[in-house]
Amino acid sequence: MIVELISVGTELLLGNIVNTNAQYLSETCAKLGLNVYYQTTVGDNRERMTEVFRTALSRADLVIIGGGLGPTEDDITKDVCAELMGMPLVEDPEVRIHLEDWYRQRKRTDIPDSNWRQALVPEGAVVFSNTNGTAPGLALEKNGKTAILLPGPPNELYPMVEDQVCAYIQKRSDCVIYSQMLKICGYGESKVEEMLLDLIDQQTNPTIATYAKTKEVHLRVTARAESEDAAKQLLKPVIKEIKKRFGNAVYTTDEHENLEDVVVRLLKKYDLTVTTAESCTGGLIAGRIVNVPGASEVFNEGYVTYSNKAKKKILGVSKATLKKYGAVSEQTAREMAAGGVFTTDADACIAVTGIAGPDGGTEEKPVGLVYIACYMKDKVKVEEYHFRGNREKVREQTVIQALDLLRRSIIKNYKKD
Amino acid sequence: MIVELISVGTELLLGNIVNTNAQYLSETCAKLGLNVYYQTTVGDNRERMTEVFRTALSRADLVIIGGGLGPTEDDITKDVCAELMGMPLVEDPEVRIHLEDWYRQRKRTDIPDSNWRQALVPEGAVVFSNTNGTAPGLALEKNGKTAILLPGPPNELYPMVEDQVCAYIQKRSDCVIYSQMLKICGYGESKVEEMLLDLIDQQTNPTIATYAKTKEVHLRVTARAESEDAAKQLLKPVIKEIKKRFGNAVYTTDEHENLEDVVVRLLKKYDLTVTTAESCTGGLIAGRIVNVPGASEVFNEGYVTYSNKAKKKILGVSKATLKKYGAVSEQTAREMAAGGVFTTDADACIAVTGIAGPDGGTEEKPVGLVYIACYMKDKVKVEEYHFRGNREKVREQTVIQALDLLRRSIIKNYKKD
Repeated sequence: MIVELISVGTELLLGNIVNTNAQYLSETCAKLGLNVYYQTTVGDNRERMTEVFRTALSRADLVIIGGGLGPTEDDITKDVCAELMGMPLVEDPEVRIHLEDWYRQRKRTDIPDSNWRQALVPEGAVVFSNTNGTAPGLALEKNGKTAILLPGPPNELYPMVEDQVCAYIQKRSDCVIYSQMLKICGYGESKVEEMLLDLIDQQTNPTIATYAKTKEVHLRVTARAESEDAAKQLLKPVIKEIKKRFGNAVYTTDEHENLEDVVVRLLKKYDLTVTTAESCTGGLIAGRIVNVPGASEVFNEGYVTYSNKAKKKILGVSKATLKKYGAVSEQTAREMAAGGVFTTDADACIAVTGIAGPDGGTEEKPVGLVYIACYMKDKVKVEEYHFRGNREKVREQTVIQALDLLRRSIIKNYKKD
Repeated sequence: MIVELISVGTELLLGNIVNTNAQYLSETCAKLGLNVYYQTTVGDNRERMTEVFRTALSRADLVIIGGGLGPTEDDITKDVCAELMGMPLVEDPEVRIHLEDWYRQRKRTDIPDSNWRQALVPEGAVVFSNTNGTAPGLALEKNGKTAILLPGPPNELYPMVEDQVCAYIQKRSDCVIYSQMLKICGYGESKVEEMLLDLIDQQTNPTIATYAKTKEVHLRVTARAESEDAAKQLLKPVIKEIKKRFGNAVYTTDEHENLEDVVVRLLKKYDLTVTTAESCTGGLIAGRIVNVPGASEVFNEGYVTYSNKAKKKILGVSKATLKKYGAVSEQTAREMAAGGVFTTDADACIAVTGIAGPDGGTEEKPVGLVYIACYMKDKVKVEEYHFRGNREKVREQTVIQALDLLRRSIIKNYKKD
């Protein structure tokens, strides 16, 4: 099935916002085994919108349109699409009730007449209810073509797609698509592809798609079968083989879990607490850990020791070490990690020191040189990295590798198998 | 001049990456006074690409195409566009030399023959040199239509646009567009628009565009005139009026300066140091400060005191305060800020404590309640906020407001005028 995604909104054409909906919808289509051939963005202009919709319906089987369903006179997506597909607008009593409830709950009484236009739906359309807003989603089917209209705000669009639209699309498909995510840390995209070359080359069903993230690669393995069970059976050996090849580098197979979630989950599992001693990352590692709800069970305090003085005073890094090896050195990282544990009562400490740039680099210690240390069970493991990119990129990569070192250390020291 | 932006790349259609280039190019076009009517994304497929380019050239005066200029056989943007516009490809000696230098510097000798295709340019095209990659940018002009081809990687595209493409477009325009940025913190977008309603309603030249960011609104005021000087003269009274209405809430008029840059600049200006005492933000404020190159002059150390115990031990928050008022209270925030200064030798401390959610909220202290305190010149200023959104959003808003409180405190306490 060929898909075209259309985003409606002048704010996109002005560059006011990034089109994250297009990425989300494209990824969702890929998950469902649909081929997106085009993405188009057009403004709130009747003539241009009509032309864009007409072109899309001529070259795609399914057109998914986001935006332009609001209550103002500018919002004409529904009118244009209904007219083009020859489906007159009629009031939907359920949508009307939803709108009335919505405004009542928000104690709004001064509703402009035009707002009730949101209760009009193309005759015969499938209606997707909107739990986070007023505009319902709609599916219009005619002459073998389908148009799905979705509200533009991501907090309305995402849950509607997840809860209703995916099921609607899958029901109309003659097979089931099932996919499994594997998230890998510590390998670059080309290395991952190289290690999976034979699997990727021979792939037909399941297929393997790689998504490169900062210092991570996400793999989506997708199978197509007559039933979900059959699809899962197809996935099983491939998943097993990938896990075998990458071992512990596969940090999760849960779509919704990220690296800090895993770190906090493992710390909780083994009843551990961690502290942080950060130089070049300046608090970002702690920030990521604290981003996990319930992080307070495993994280009490953290330190940003940016100056040498702070490294000495707070973490007890020795003057001699700083003088002999410098602030960015394996030895300083080691003492920072140990100091973090001694100064708190945490079970582990993750420490980083490095040169994020743009200044401060030398021939011997160039920008991008970072030492990451993890204290655990009376031992310190230090890793040396040479990151590329600007200050922000170096810091970002450092945060990921630090969280991953912590994760690997927990597995190595505590996992019994 | 009507513009269409085309992004080439199967990775966009699969949802592997977000199309930030489209946003950047759209904003750049808006700055230059160009009207973007369409954005289109298409994959590396000759037939579909040809059709998309043909449509774009028929409905726009200027087509800007990003991506598909790489060295592999998949990269066919240049071939398709040159064929469509009837401009044969010829080798450009300067590009050839650039490629040879590029590979020599990287000590690469095993260059596949196909890589030298990058030295081919459509006959008569304007060439934009690429300082960060191998693919040059190109401008093809024919029959009153222009196609600009740009490399896809943002680190190649952005500087090429900034340094060469903007000047190329401006030179071809019959007037000069000049714009000025004003960044405002502390007002919502609708409030800003309300406060500028008369100016926005009567605008023709200059125009005012608003860009909503988290807890910030950026305004771009754009004038069109015969010369840059004349444009600047048109801008002057509008800028002055906006500054008058928003006062110190306008934190910068420099396009490239963000909130933490301003904070660090002000701290340096008044020879001040700052420390941080963070609870719910868990290090993110320190992380933002340290993101500014040279932050070490104003920031030595920071603390993440997530548990009550850490607040007591590190910052000296009293047990009585925590018991009577709780960790999330004006009083605790106040003692955290004071404690931060006493425990370090910093001149100022910014402290935050709040309920980021999703758990931990009560009727009396709901999720989103945050106290931000700033210690400066022996006084503590505490502000209470009620933020909306999920955990991440609450934390993000807290970071911005904390940096802004610090900024306002410096201005209030140190600015002489």
